[in-house]
Amino acid sequence: MIFCRFILKGQSIDEWKYGIVRNHQVQSLSPNPFSTYEIGEEEIPFNEIKLCSPVLPTKIVAVGVNYKEHAKEMGHLPPENPLLFLKPPSSVIGPEEIICYPKASSRVDYEAELAVVIKKKTKNILPEAAKDVILGYTCFNDVTARDLQKKDGQWTRAKGFDTFSAIGPWIVTDLEPSELVVESYLNGELKQSGKTNDMIFDVPHIVSFISNIMTLEPGDIISTGTPVGIGPMQPGDMIDIRIEGIGILRNFVE
Amino acid sequence: MIFCRFILKGQSIDEWKYGIVRNHQVQSLSPNPFSTYEIGEEEIPFNEIKLCSPVLPTKIVAVGVNYKEHAKEMGHLPPENPLLFLKPPSSVIGPEEIICYPKASSRVDYEAELAVVIKKKTKNILPEAAKDVILGYTCFNDVTARDLQKKDGQWTRAKGFDTFSAIGPWIVTDLEPSELVVESYLNGELKQSGKTNDMIFDVPHIVSFISNIMTLEPGDIISTGTPVGIGPMQPGDMIDIRIEGIGILRNFVE
Repeated sequence: MIFCRFILKGQSIDEWKYGIVRNHQVQSLSPNPFSTYEIGEEEIPFNEIKLCSPVLPTKIVAVGVNYKEHAKEMGHLPPENPLLFLKPPSSVIGPEEIICYPKASSRVDYEAELAVVIKKKTKNILPEAAKDVILGYTCFNDVTARDLQKKDGQWTRAKGFDTFSAIGPWIVTDLEPSELVVESYLNGELKQSGKTNDMIFDVPHIVSFISNIMTLEPGDIISTGTPVGIGPMQPGDMIDIRIEGIGILRNFVE
Repeated sequence: MIFCRFILKGQSIDEWKYGIVRNHQVQSLSPNPFSTYEIGEEEIPFNEIKLCSPVLPTKIVAVGVNYKEHAKEMGHLPPENPLLFLKPPSSVIGPEEIICYPKASSRVDYEAELAVVIKKKTKNILPEAAKDVILGYTCFNDVTARDLQKKDGQWTRAKGFDTFSAIGPWIVTDLEPSELVVESYLNGELKQSGKTNDMIFDVPHIVSFISNIMTLEPGDIISTGTPVGIGPMQPGDMIDIRIEGIGILRNFVE
């Protein structure tokens, strides 16, 4: 199953609906993918809609330095526990939307990540139970002002600017997350390519670890870290995050 | 004006309402303090209600190392810009509620802080305009697992546990924030006492700085740092945050 959030072209963003994607068409879904839902009868062709970020999370929890090769690239030792940080809900954008280069930074990087979408309220679960609380998976671009990340020590500013959390294009539910190819392409050129089996902490371990700290809510996003090959973007660039079995999240930098 | 959020004693938490506090009584308020509202006629005596956290923020942005004496205590140089971190909405509790000591930590500290409550959607404002986007002020206990803060480097886990953001007891609107006494009392004993004029970055500067990074939403919380005198709490303790002109936020540790 593929869940999305969308508006009809020309509609205002307030008129968004959840939907399911089938055969290049979207059918609306009510009330949401996190509970029992009904599917609308109308089949809307893909060219009549605009996709939004597939969820509106109450929080985005991300894991730093979670791929072995990326840890080396950053000069970090692999952490003993998942190294967590938060991105604010105000940073979320959807597919095809603009990543705004902030004045305060002169180095803004892409980071391709596999993101987990939480299905239900979750607290203190074991790794073995993680599958039951995951709705599905989507692509995440953990946009990062690399210069401010180094300067501040804490990563909140560097990763917290408006438009710095690109999510989409949709949520794929039936996906085994342990051996997926995660890639980024800058203006069509392959920049990052990793496989999720290079993760230091795997998806069930991460979800369990976080659920023992903070209660997770339906629609919350957990982003699982980026593989080797990070680098800067410039205004005018096009950045694609591509994950095997999910699809391509495309954004533009201005 | 004093705004609160409350339930009648015995009601479920889902039945909360906003209210205003006058003469030891509460009148309900609808729809919320962030827009034009109507005040209910019934005057409910204070002993018939239970206060909740005065807002349900979409995000909590906090400032680290923002009092000169506390910077010395932590062995930090004063930062060049406000040093930001985020606490998740899932960490919020209200007055008289329980701070849960997590298994992962053996050192959980209180941190008394003056918190700003945002009134309206805010982006890119100057310090001079901060007053217009602030609804009012409340007490904040930025509970911190000090051992995990040091171990992780990033502060998200150490400050992100459920129950680690105590907010309340209410929001006071007509308050000049530049010379307030901020204190904490552990089991009745004074532990922290600072004045907001010891802040490295003042309230208007902080609100402006954050608004140039992330769009602020009505009800969002900005906590402005803690004065000298931090220290640990133990299960069984009672911790009070007291701010001049606001009142006392009391919580219990278990």
